[in-house]
Amino acid sequence: MTTASPFAVSASAGTAPLTREDCVAADAVNPLARFRDQFELPEGVLYFDGNSLGARPRGTAERAAEVITAEWGTDLVRSWNTAGWFDLPARLGDKLGRLIGAGDGEVVVTDSTTLNIFKALAAAVRIQKEDHPERRVIVTERDNFPTDVYITEGLIEFLDQGYELRLIDADLPWQEAITDDVVVSLLSHVNYRTGTMYNMEKVTAHAHANGVLTIWDLAHAAGAVDVQLAAAKADFAVGCTYKYLNGGPGSPAFIWVNAAHQDRFWQPLSGWWGHARPFEMETHYEPQAGIRRFLCGTQPIVSLALVECGLDVTVQTSPAELHRVSLDLTDLFIRLVEERCGDHPLTLITPRDHAVRGSHVSFEHPNGYQIIQALTARGVIGDYREPEVLRFGVTPLYLGYADVWDAVEILRDILDTRSWDAPEFHRRNAVT
Amino acid sequence: MTTASPFAVSASAGTAPLTREDCVAADAVNPLARFRDQFELPEGVLYFDGNSLGARPRGTAERAAEVITAEWGTDLVRSWNTAGWFDLPARLGDKLGRLIGAGDGEVVVTDSTTLNIFKALAAAVRIQKEDHPERRVIVTERDNFPTDVYITEGLIEFLDQGYELRLIDADLPWQEAITDDVVVSLLSHVNYRTGTMYNMEKVTAHAHANGVLTIWDLAHAAGAVDVQLAAAKADFAVGCTYKYLNGGPGSPAFIWVNAAHQDRFWQPLSGWWGHARPFEMETHYEPQAGIRRFLCGTQPIVSLALVECGLDVTVQTSPAELHRVSLDLTDLFIRLVEERCGDHPLTLITPRDHAVRGSHVSFEHPNGYQIIQALTARGVIGDYREPEVLRFGVTPLYLGYADVWDAVEILRDILDTRSWDAPEFHRRNAVT
Repeated sequence: MTTASPFAVSASAGTAPLTREDCVAADAVNPLARFRDQFELPEGVLYFDGNSLGARPRGTAERAAEVITAEWGTDLVRSWNTAGWFDLPARLGDKLGRLIGAGDGEVVVTDSTTLNIFKALAAAVRIQKEDHPERRVIVTERDNFPTDVYITEGLIEFLDQGYELRLIDADLPWQEAITDDVVVSLLSHVNYRTGTMYNMEKVTAHAHANGVLTIWDLAHAAGAVDVQLAAAKADFAVGCTYKYLNGGPGSPAFIWVNAAHQDRFWQPLSGWWGHARPFEMETHYEPQAGIRRFLCGTQPIVSLALVECGLDVTVQTSPAELHRVSLDLTDLFIRLVEERCGDHPLTLITPRDHAVRGSHVSFEHPNGYQIIQALTARGVIGDYREPEVLRFGVTPLYLGYADVWDAVEILRDILDTRSWDAPEFHRRNAVT
Repeated sequence: MTTASPFAVSASAGTAPLTREDCVAADAVNPLARFRDQFELPEGVLYFDGNSLGARPRGTAERAAEVITAEWGTDLVRSWNTAGWFDLPARLGDKLGRLIGAGDGEVVVTDSTTLNIFKALAAAVRIQKEDHPERRVIVTERDNFPTDVYITEGLIEFLDQGYELRLIDADLPWQEAITDDVVVSLLSHVNYRTGTMYNMEKVTAHAHANGVLTIWDLAHAAGAVDVQLAAAKADFAVGCTYKYLNGGPGSPAFIWVNAAHQDRFWQPLSGWWGHARPFEMETHYEPQAGIRRFLCGTQPIVSLALVECGLDVTVQTSPAELHRVSLDLTDLFIRLVEERCGDHPLTLITPRDHAVRGSHVSFEHPNGYQIIQALTARGVIGDYREPEVLRFGVTPLYLGYADVWDAVEILRDILDTRSWDAPEFHRRNAVT
């Protein structure tokens, strides 16, 4: 499905090169422009890295001060009840669920994405031990975000029961990888480097036809594209709240489990927060009904509470609307790069087809690392990913059409003047 | 070893009943009294629940505001480098290590206590698969904090390789439970209900003589008693920063691994933060050298950063001094209850012997729950633990001798007047 541009900027403005005025005109009719004021961004910064760390919603400092001074400082330990700390993972999960096509009571916000992948993998392995006890293959992707692969390797080696990894790559498309010897597939809905998006419904249907369960990593999808977990009949999903959901640095992740699977068994990271009666201090574990059994230990309340500030902005729009504007903005980004930077060796690695594009746009360039440093020095924050990839996250809640114009103009200037070739842009940091 | 009271209040004031003036005099020479001003506590509250949630250090709201507005809001994604976010688990770990007899590079602050127990258990299981492949028994304690047992059950069931749980209890003392068929023992250094403390060196020596590895849960010990992990030759330790270390609600936990074991293998919760080169985006997991391989995914930075505020207070004293004053205060608590509440059915369940006492004091009373509610209504915050246990955490950084006097006086009044028997104290909350 290709969605037409609602603003007639990138797709239908004819063959004449676009101008900044076209972009300003599009901003004037952008239904998401009103959200820009709900974020704090420094002057002079064009922030295209919200897919790494989302921008700061207004009100976060005040919310933290409230949690710290009133809830912790004054009400002290009573706040587990009176401030609802203990219920935060489920209460925030319900709010987040609306953004990913999930129902109430199906999501908890907790732990890290990597840990939640472990829980989902372990759950899938246990279901399949009953349903297909002979299967031993776990499918993921060579180009998946590495932690997804690492935690799968950890689980396989720890179990020591003959499980093996099968990696989708250029030589092995997903249709051929997900076959009837597979336990579970673990795929990122949107690829962190290229921005390529799977058709979740189609892959899930293929997997189920082969008796395979599906885990979807929504790190680059939740709050960015129109995720519909229940409609796609997915089995498990995990994701991140600190990217497109603007929850703050390292804010806790989430896990969704299809209601059909939730009560079938418990997952092995079984701590007291998942117990049916956590304060009875019983000697043996008995899981809570439903999604709360995917909780483990005590959660970091200050970081967790801040997740709500980001969610409260995002729930004012819809995933479909977010993705529609995002596609228009990435169309614009691509068109402007081609119109204005066409003499430079930038290779688009993000699909042009809307049906398979997430919410960021990536180009390869032999000097990608240096160019990203030079852009940063000029206030355009994108990021670099190995190898040679310039990545620009498009976050319509706080980026508009003229922002894209301005960023591409600075990119053009850096390329035309070769200012990226200065010595200071060749030094590598540990974290990029 | 019994440490004499340095203040001659509780132990050596002769047989004459103590007075509040004796307590005030003791406060005047208490070397830890100077720390009281570094904490924010509400007026009219006597806080004896710092072993559940520590009090708020001054400066925490300011530190959070700095992380949120400057590091997140202004520097955005660059703060992973410029604000040192990525190094926080190890940097805080080094600071915390000084409080538990660990060296630099041996501790990381990360995830929850329950998850860190899983990592340590998994690591111990893997060592023993090489060293004692026939062993299948994991020892813990019936009266351990429940999450320790629950996560062990989760690991055993998930592995599905014949591991079994053996529980120390009244019928099976630790000496008889930790025998040469055991893989690992998982014990709380200080029991969360009774305050009983194990002799870590003695138990570890016994365990090692039987080829058994030891995991110590320091939740009620770190920042409270004189933990010396390296001297005791312990193998693994985990613990909590939100109790005696005052890190804030649900602040991330810690894990220590004896340097001898750190590089032997990797633990199965193997995420990108534990990878040797996390930003190279390699396809296969390769653990970092040392303790950082016990990291998994992205950490909740706001909650994590606040841990430092608590540590910065505690490192100004020493665990030995903290425990010395704590023992004097718990001696005082016990003596005052016996002198002033002796007509009531309060049964001390905390050991009198300093050598086996942690930093809280607990009494059983048939109406324990109601009494704790009545104390709370009068501003004395202790807590209730099933069954029938009134628990009072003694935290010498912000509690002194006169505070103990005042708390016991209110307890005496509640008991003498039976004011705990009011209807409002009989309703149960979900969280106590």
